[in-house]
Amino acid sequence: MTTITPAQTSTCTPSERAAHHRGLLVEAVQAVTSRAAFSAFADRAPSGPTGDEATARFEALLESPLHLPGHVGTVTLQNDEISPWTRLPLGVGYPRAEAGALIDNAQQAQASWSSLSIDERAGVCIEMIERMFAANVVLGLAAMHTTGQGRGMSQSGSGTNALDRGLEAVAAAWRVLSRVPTSATWEQTFGAELVALEKTYRIVPMGPALVVACASFPAWNVYPAVFANLMAGNPVVVKPHPSSVLQMALAVSIMRETLTDAGCPADAVQLAVDSAAEPITSVLATHPAIRIVDFTGSARYGAWVEENARQARVYSETSGLNSVVLDSFIDTDAAFRAIAGSISLFSAQMCTAPQNIYIPENGVVTPDGILSADEIEQGVVAAVAAIAESPRRAAAVLGAIQSDGTLDEIAALTASLRTLAHAQVKVLSEPRSWSAPDFPDARTSTPLIARVGLDNDNLFTHECFGPVVFLIRVPDARTALKRAANDAATHGAITAFLYSTDENLIDAAEDAFASAGAALTINVTGAMPINFSAAFSDFHVSGLNPAGTATLTDESFVTGRFRVVQSRRPLRPSHN
Amino acid sequence: MTTITPAQTSTCTPSERAAHHRGLLVEAVQAVTSRAAFSAFADRAPSGPTGDEATARFEALLESPLHLPGHVGTVTLQNDEISPWTRLPLGVGYPRAEAGALIDNAQQAQASWSSLSIDERAGVCIEMIERMFAANVVLGLAAMHTTGQGRGMSQSGSGTNALDRGLEAVAAAWRVLSRVPTSATWEQTFGAELVALEKTYRIVPMGPALVVACASFPAWNVYPAVFANLMAGNPVVVKPHPSSVLQMALAVSIMRETLTDAGCPADAVQLAVDSAAEPITSVLATHPAIRIVDFTGSARYGAWVEENARQARVYSETSGLNSVVLDSFIDTDAAFRAIAGSISLFSAQMCTAPQNIYIPENGVVTPDGILSADEIEQGVVAAVAAIAESPRRAAAVLGAIQSDGTLDEIAALTASLRTLAHAQVKVLSEPRSWSAPDFPDARTSTPLIARVGLDNDNLFTHECFGPVVFLIRVPDARTALKRAANDAATHGAITAFLYSTDENLIDAAEDAFASAGAALTINVTGAMPINFSAAFSDFHVSGLNPAGTATLTDESFVTGRFRVVQSRRPLRPSHN
Repeated sequence: MTTITPAQTSTCTPSERAAHHRGLLVEAVQAVTSRAAFSAFADRAPSGPTGDEATARFEALLESPLHLPGHVGTVTLQNDEISPWTRLPLGVGYPRAEAGALIDNAQQAQASWSSLSIDERAGVCIEMIERMFAANVVLGLAAMHTTGQGRGMSQSGSGTNALDRGLEAVAAAWRVLSRVPTSATWEQTFGAELVALEKTYRIVPMGPALVVACASFPAWNVYPAVFANLMAGNPVVVKPHPSSVLQMALAVSIMRETLTDAGCPADAVQLAVDSAAEPITSVLATHPAIRIVDFTGSARYGAWVEENARQARVYSETSGLNSVVLDSFIDTDAAFRAIAGSISLFSAQMCTAPQNIYIPENGVVTPDGILSADEIEQGVVAAVAAIAESPRRAAAVLGAIQSDGTLDEIAALTASLRTLAHAQVKVLSEPRSWSAPDFPDARTSTPLIARVGLDNDNLFTHECFGPVVFLIRVPDARTALKRAANDAATHGAITAFLYSTDENLIDAAEDAFASAGAALTINVTGAMPINFSAAFSDFHVSGLNPAGTATLTDESFVTGRFRVVQSRRPLRPSHN
Repeated sequence: MTTITPAQTSTCTPSERAAHHRGLLVEAVQAVTSRAAFSAFADRAPSGPTGDEATARFEALLESPLHLPGHVGTVTLQNDEISPWTRLPLGVGYPRAEAGALIDNAQQAQASWSSLSIDERAGVCIEMIERMFAANVVLGLAAMHTTGQGRGMSQSGSGTNALDRGLEAVAAAWRVLSRVPTSATWEQTFGAELVALEKTYRIVPMGPALVVACASFPAWNVYPAVFANLMAGNPVVVKPHPSSVLQMALAVSIMRETLTDAGCPADAVQLAVDSAAEPITSVLATHPAIRIVDFTGSARYGAWVEENARQARVYSETSGLNSVVLDSFIDTDAAFRAIAGSISLFSAQMCTAPQNIYIPENGVVTPDGILSADEIEQGVVAAVAAIAESPRRAAAVLGAIQSDGTLDEIAALTASLRTLAHAQVKVLSEPRSWSAPDFPDARTSTPLIARVGLDNDNLFTHECFGPVVFLIRVPDARTALKRAANDAATHGAITAFLYSTDENLIDAAEDAFASAGAALTINVTGAMPINFSAAFSDFHVSGLNPAGTATLTDESFVTGRFRVVQSRRPLRPSHN
């Protein structure tokens, strides 16, 4: 991996790393504390390859085995990795190892890694993040050709934003871990006797941790989980989805290189690769030695992991039934653009994308009068169409579809909606593929947009992964709010959106979605995607509904990954 | 319950309570942070009834129904409560209610209780603690005549020390909750556009919490769990053991009175009472609406709760296999007294009491030469006998045995040990009852002390509840250390003890017991019971071994009881 990180990286002790990165750590801790805007990468360009050089480095990775120095396993061609943009196999081979060997190596690495101080661990983790940022463009191309993300998103969402979330976890963990005193002098009178003890408190890691990534956006959840674990002293096994390995393999390679350069055991971070035909996630997740599982993926498999990985603490993020409630607009066109953007961004293959848009029967109040429900539908459809109209914009915004299965499901859903022949259900915009510039074979689809009624809840009360949007007719916005919040609580939701000028309704929405555990975005339009989740500031997933148990990054995301064990003895004179 | 709290308690708003108790809160938070010695009750006498007045108040409670104003349920005589000291039924009746009614009431109370600020909740919680302290002697008598504790312990361990642990939980929760910002202004540039958002962050309680108490020491675990829950906004149902209700019923009564006086819903704290014949704990623990369970009790039932209360986060403390490793003494007699004290204190019916004492075959090094293994055995037996010798001292230290079942089990174990007729196994001190001053019918027993070998691990690798001690012959102290740490990791342990002058062995013990998750006490002798666990300073239970998942009081004890949910909207001018 020296091919994608800058040449000047060199050996450096953990405490030197800690001193070097102290300033960034302090800034990150301040941001986590205030939750004000912060990015470690604003106004900075990666020091590693960019442009054509990055492309050449990326292409050199293809059709060849990826060797991770010292990593256990037999390098095996990964047949499941096919670029959503070219539809060609990447042809990369990765080391495949038995669960037992990975866990043995992790346990071996734990003693040495966890013997570092909190500051030293933070220094090494931030060095990993800096090296991944240096390689951001190459890592981004790997993300692009596994997830289907557009080139820009692959460097921002899967790059700097994901790295910021990783740094946020380092900072949050540092804050929690640093608060545990390492020692105390304790004096208390028992009867006539003054008892004086010296006490020491030791952070003890839980043990080997498994991080299971999803196919469409692995970096965003993997980095926080890896760094929260490393900070707590736990060795990590990263288990990417078999169709989306390369970016995570490169990330693990950089992390291992950093560990080696710091004189730490590389096996504090390992890679577990399997195939769709012979999966090993269940074996790893339920192995008695795995004490923590971070899982991102489907609700069904997430539930299996939670049910079966009883030996581990499970931090999960699965799927969400995210809603938009429409009541009144401040700026109609801006609202349509904002909603269309959130539907279109990476073809709604993001956990924050809305699926259910509630439209009051009596229309929506705007500065220019009331827009009827039909006009709202038309406005949404037109704004979505405007994005897909320009192939270059479509490629940047919609990206490609990660999995053939998603296209199949959307086709089947479209066909089934057509058979529901009554006014309440109507396909308003058929999904169609569009031709991406430079990538004529790309797997693409415009969103399926369908009108449904409240009675069609069999359609909209589960997540339809990918570009599927239901415009749900409701009697009024209060009914929509109640329904959306109830579905969030019952079926899981990560985000919710409200457009309203009615402060009473806004208050009610804040109460309802807080209880349901969905983050609410109110009346946001403009350049920021409304489903953008900002590292250091936005809590992501509440843990209050079935969309997941883990929050990026609250203190609960950290505190369960370690324990404190104490010893005490009579105070020695030198220790007073 | 106005009968046992001072007359001057009166109506006062939560914010007045908060201001009134601010000083104590600040001191408690400082203590939690430094883990230095602190007690809220040092040099203070309860303002409520003491001496004969307290005894009269306590006796007035007997043979009559206890009415909790506004509490759901039908008051029913509690036949399972029999004083271990008098062997007479207490004859108190408590409200019994269906699980559904308790949960409905809890849910009703949640909205109002959780709408208070963190400071207000802390104010009301500390007021509860102060009122319980005022009633400390009466509550202590209730503890004494349900648990069997001696009068002193019932007012310290079950009184002030338990209240300190409760205050510690208030402080720890306040610290965690206060760190979550309530709002942030967030500004970031997207392209040419400056996006400015105002964000609000809301603490959302998980929901109704169940606190299941053990029979022998309910206050010590109930108070921290109740206060951590209340601080997080969760309503609580306290479920005492059917044979040990009265102290918890009085505590709940005081808490409810405090809530009512503060204008808060009394049902934020409720009491669930059942009978041994018709238990309801399992129904409550697995009810879909119960989101948190704090459990103290047997390992077997604790495992059942963890396995079945899947809808809830379970914080448990079950049983421990606590060990003493002997290598060398600084002061032989002081060490014997310390060990004998920990075996004898409340007849080892405490989760911190040691059961397995490892004695090297080649003896123990002392300032006066080597004591042989046989001499060590004799020293332990003699030091234990010295405590039991004086009936008054025995009553204070050993107390009574909470349950007939414990006596039966010790008798059966003694009989079974006698049948193991070889040199390796020998009963060194038979359990015998002794006559307590003032309580001729008290259920008492001196400790059963038996010599066993390492091969007899079927005897000593599970907790034998109550006064049972195995003196285990081992080749050397290092073998003992390895064995004790391994048993702690495998079977669970809360504490471990080492007597050694060898700093290398001490280092090895610190490492081994840290990994195993047992708190280690080294070379402690003197007036403090060696298994005393100090609120604010000593972490109790590590969560790293089967002895439990909850730590009093680390941040993990708090962070899982609430979630943060956010909302965001464009920055309004007035909010800049």
